[in-house]
This record gives sequence, structure tokens and C-alpha cells, in this order.
Amino acid sequence: MEGDPISKLCTPAMVVDVDIVKRNAQRMVDRYQDLGVKLRPHMKTHKTLECGDIMTGGSRRCVVVSTLAEASFYADHGFDDILYAYPLPFDKLERCAALSERLSLFQVLLDHPQALELLSKRPLRAGRPWHVWLKLDCGNGRAGVLHSEPEALQLAQAIAKTEGVELTGVYAHCGNSYHCKGVEKIQAVAQETTTLTLQFMEKLRAVGVNCKSSIGSTPSCSHPIKDMGQLSEVHPGNYVFYDVQQSLIGSCSMEDVAVRVLTRVVGHCPHRNQLLVDCGWAALSQDGAGRLPSGYAVIEGHPDLKLLSMTQEHGRVEPITGELDYSKYPLGSLLKLVPYHSCATAMMHSVYHVHSGGRLVGKWFPTRGW
Amino acid sequence: MEGDPISKLCTPAMVVDVDIVKRNAQRMVDRYQDLGVKLRPHMKTHKTLECGDIMTGGSRRCVVVSTLAEASFYADHGFDDILYAYPLPFDKLERCAALSERLSLFQVLLDHPQALELLSKRPLRAGRPWHVWLKLDCGNGRAGVLHSEPEALQLAQAIAKTEGVELTGVYAHCGNSYHCKGVEKIQAVAQETTTLTLQFMEKLRAVGVNCKSSIGSTPSCSHPIKDMGQLSEVHPGNYVFYDVQQSLIGSCSMEDVAVRVLTRVVGHCPHRNQLLVDCGWAALSQDGAGRLPSGYAVIEGHPDLKLLSMTQEHGRVEPITGELDYSKYPLGSLLKLVPYHSCATAMMHSVYHVHSGGRLVGKWFPTRGW
Repeated sequence: MEGDPISKLCTPAMVVDVDIVKRNAQRMVDRYQDLGVKLRPHMKTHKTLECGDIMTGGSRRCVVVSTLAEASFYADHGFDDILYAYPLPFDKLERCAALSERLSLFQVLLDHPQALELLSKRPLRAGRPWHVWLKLDCGNGRAGVLHSEPEALQLAQAIAKTEGVELTGVYAHCGNSYHCKGVEKIQAVAQETTTLTLQFMEKLRAVGVNCKSSIGSTPSCSHPIKDMGQLSEVHPGNYVFYDVQQSLIGSCSMEDVAVRVLTRVVGHCPHRNQLLVDCGWAALSQDGAGRLPSGYAVIEGHPDLKLLSMTQEHGRVEPITGELDYSKYPLGSLLKLVPYHSCATAMMHSVYHVHSGGRLVGKWFPTRGW
Repeated sequence: MEGDPISKLCTPAMVVDVDIVKRNAQRMVDRYQDLGVKLRPHMKTHKTLECGDIMTGGSRRCVVVSTLAEASFYADHGFDDILYAYPLPFDKLERCAALSERLSLFQVLLDHPQALELLSKRPLRAGRPWHVWLKLDCGNGRAGVLHSEPEALQLAQAIAKTEGVELTGVYAHCGNSYHCKGVEKIQAVAQETTTLTLQFMEKLRAVGVNCKSSIGSTPSCSHPIKDMGQLSEVHPGNYVFYDVQQSLIGSCSMEDVAVRVLTRVVGHCPHRNQLLVDCGWAALSQDGAGRLPSGYAVIEGHPDLKLLSMTQEHGRVEPITGELDYSKYPLGSLLKLVPYHSCATAMMHSVYHVHSGGRLVGKWFPTRGW
């Protein structure tokens, strides 16, 4: 019930501190206003309308999504200028066409000539163009045509000159920033991705092609380098929640992490020096593989405890050293887990309980599927 | 659409072969009819009505669940004789009471005197008793009072003599069978759990207490030992789907695995000798941690391929040895992933696409939450 303390919730439950969410969102807005770069926030971490509103300052414009289900969900609720930043899926062409014909600005992404061919064979109604971003791989090693290959420039030119198709921009994801530790290393990846992207833009201009440029990842966008001011857009997403992983990378401090999984003690196991909590992988995900010194999560206020292992609905907690003092953790008592990876944890929940200062203020319902 | 081949589905998508599901369910029914032991199937893997119907032969009676949300969902749809096999949660006592007062037979489980105290302070209406199973730990090392501790017998006796509470049975989960490899080792764990449980029942009878006994896990229940015939019930769950993990343990063969995640090729990366598929951990889960020789899953019909790594919506596939022949995997082509752990994969999907012989016959919608 609204107004209740979060401790009234049945557990496990994911709670979101709306004040931290707003602060994280505003900081990112300010950062890119100062740099003169458009912020296109990614919706994939939370997949909710409310958080989309906070990230866009209520405009419901200029967002990026990871699935077509997200695109449809946001479109159905008045969002527009949506970039579906995923290699154009051959099985979903008609759904992409429908969104392109319905919204003012629906944008797709591709990294292969066959995808371009597919688009050219399905012209949009009323002479509308397909708005297409070229995905460039600047060292991340996932999707994208490799920046150094001649095919990259050829594909960009082909997009630019194909009838019914417009080259909207060049899009690079610096997910390799997730391997960094510390601001200096994050900024080295940000610099490399930015430099390679800007060099590519230069090559494009040299052949008479002009379009936007965008890079993104929460680490790099949390610590922008000066040259990012020459980009058109950035597209981070996780920053609205952050998590333990981001704090270890150096994107944020632990105080910036907006989400917790609330869990209760459901068992005392003195013969194993453990306690059981009601948070298993069904509520936390297995992300991080338990490699933190504190295991699968950080247990807020209890740096001496470790979430050692999980099954579907149970978590095993033990002290990092020494003997458990069970009097400190009575059955039914509440613990707060700071997730290793908030994107993965959020995915396990069909409702997020939103609070301000520990008092419930509402619920957010994410969309799911593809 | 019903009647369509599964290849018409947008990917990623989880598909369930209903014929294999029925065969797995029937084999388990036959196995325990022969042994004269009641089968109480666990709903936690699938959490759907339809699969619950198949596992109970349409009776909608005698099931076990892992969350109170499942209990309510099944109760709302005419299921009864439901065992909520989770340490009695202190925050959900009233919800448990409501189900106990509403169903013919709702059963809870506990492993601590404080939980018993809680029940005795909340008598059910109309003189109904709380139906309580004592959770016994026979070496699994999760919930349960340790079989060898004097507290186990004391707690059972306390349940038996507490007013308003009935000791329904003794419940042991032999999850340690998941560490086995091969039928012989599975049966050694089944034997140990059965022997310890039956010895405990003997001790109970010696002090004048009679109640049911139940053990379970998919490995042990797939290969019962003779002494299991002396138990009242068994409670396996995963067997209805099975998975790669179960086939490696020796519970089943790969032909018995009823679920697949369909995925499509969305990228060619010759510079890395990889391809990208549209199944990330959002559709498969991270269970198994990629430790299979084929990585995070088995790619059906392609023993030469490995699902090396995943991010939220992408999977990286590479050959186990040698160079990828991209002509065999055109963009848009379909691959079928056999999940490492079907419980974890099912949790990632809000709809299961059900087929018979590769033709769609319907959709199942699981319940979620706690």
C-alpha cells in the first residue's frame, strides 16, 4: 500500500528508490546538455513507462530499445522517435514496417548488405523512408560491421544511396567498457570508440555522406571525454538504476545504485554456519556468477556476509569469516541485496515496488518478450 | 497461429513439445503406480495450468508448489490438495491461513519451532487444523532440520501435539542428486535419503507418531530404488521438461528433453570466426555458466557449435574447432537451443509455445511472482 514502509512488502521483492533514479537521470541529462550532445536513453534495463518518462524528462521522445516488444509497448503509450538498436531481424520485418508507418520516427539498425536488401524490397507506404543506423563495431566484438573493414564504408554508402532508405546515423556500442576498472580505463575505451567513430564519420563526409553519430554504454557515458562533444547522440541505459558491477567498473558509487532485492531470513543452519534467505536466482538472476567477495550480491549494511549460492527460491548466506551470530538475523528479518547487474535482476520481476525514502509510492510494470 | 510450423515464430521463443511432456508425465505416473507410492508432481518448473493438468492426469489434485503465488494461481483455477513446500514464511502467514481456510487441503512446511509457534498463535477458522509437513535435511544441505539432530524428532513431536496443527508428513528433498553422474550414483543418493527418512519415520512411530513421508528430486524419482516403495509420496518436478543438465546427471536421455529456445542468426562475424544469434540471457538464463563443451546450451543438430557467451539479447556462437562455414548459417536461419536448465529458461518466458510434431497447438502462460 502507498505510504507503507518497504518492510511491509512480501519478499522477495525488487524495490526502486525513485529519488536516486531521478538523480541519476538528471545527472545524465545535465552532462550531455553541457556537452551539447543529444541524450537518447536506453529503455532495456527497466522497460517501464514511468522510468522512460523520468529519463526523457516527460517528453516521451528520443529513446532506444533492445526488443521490438519494447518498441511496440512504448509506441502504444505515446512514445516516439524510437530507435530499435538491434541488427534488423529478418523474421520481424513487417512489424518494423508497421511501426515505421505508424510513428513519426521509428529507426532501425543494420550491419549487413542483406538486411539493406530486405528493406529495399519492402518500401514503406506514402513514400516514407526507412530510417537506418549503421552499426559499427569499434572493438566491442558483438554486433556491427568492423570499423577497419572496407565493407563498413561501402555499406554506409549503399544505405545512403538506396531508394526508400535513409542513412540516419552511425551507431557504436562500447560494451568493452564493462571490462574496465576505474575512470581512466573507462575513458580510454570511450576515447577509442569516439575516435574511431569520428574517423569513420570523416571518411563518410569525404565521400559526400552526412549523417548522425552515436556511441554509448553506461560506463563511458558516465565519464564522458571531451571529444564525445563532437558526436550527435549518446545512448546509455543502465545508469538509471546502476548496480554493483557499475560501481566496480567505476561508473558510479554504491550510493548511486537505485535498486535492491528485499529478502527475508527463512532458515537457520548452525550445523553449516549458514542462514537461508528467500531470494534465489528466480528473484536475483545468476549474473556475476557469485564472483564478488560477497558472492552473488552485496548485502547492504552487512559487509561481513556473503550470498554464497542460490537455487530457484533459496539463497545460502554465510559469514565471510568466523561464526554467524544468529541473534542478529532472526527468522523473518529483512536483508537488502544490492544486485550485481540490475538489468538481469529487473528481468526476473514483473513488478517493481517504487519508494521514496523507504516509503512506497507506487508500482512499475515492465514489458516483456520480443 | 495454431497449425503453423514452429519456424513461423518470431525469435527468441521457447517451444514445448507436448508429446514429450505427456510421455515424461505418463512414465512418472506409471513408475509410482507400480511402486504403490503417491506421485505429487511439483509445479515450479513450468507454473502453468495446462502442464499441471497433464502431470495430474486432469485431476487437479495432489500437487506441490514453490511459491505462494503458484499456490494461489492453482487454487484460483480449481486445483486442491496443494503442498506449499517452502519454509513457512513469516511475512505470508495470513495468505497461508486464507488458503488453508478456503481449500479442502492446503499444506505448509516448516523446519523451526518458531514457525510452529506462529501457526499455533493463528488458529484456523471452523476448527480446521493447519496441515504441516516437517522438512528434514537428509544431506541435501539447504532447508530442513538435520535428520541426525535430536531437535528433528522433538520438532515432529511438538507439531503432532500442538493444538490446531496436524503433522501431515515428513518431507525431504534430495537435491544433492544433482551432483551425481550416472544411475548408480543417483540411486546411492536416493537410497541414502530414503533410508534416513524411513529411519526417522521409525523413530517417530516409536514415540507414537504416525504420518506420511515424501522424498523427491527429478534424478532420484526417475530411477527409484526398491525402498522408495515404503514412502507415502514422491514429489519430482523438472522431469516433465527435463534438460541438458538432467541428461548429464543420467535422469533422462536427450530425446526426453521437451523444451527448446528457438533462435535466429542475426550476425556474421568472420573476423572473429563467430556468428551472432538473437538469444541472450534474457531468453535462456545464465544457468550452467557456460561450462558445457557446447557452452550455455546444446545447439540441436550442430554438435560442432558452441554458444560461447551471451549478453542480454545476443548470443555469440563459434565452432568448437576449425572455421565457420557461413553458407550453412545464413542470416535469419533458425537454430534450436536445448537449455542447460529448463526451470531457469522457463522463468525467462511469459509464454511457452506448445507444439506437436513441430506444428503449433497452443500457448501456455505461466504464473510469476511470490
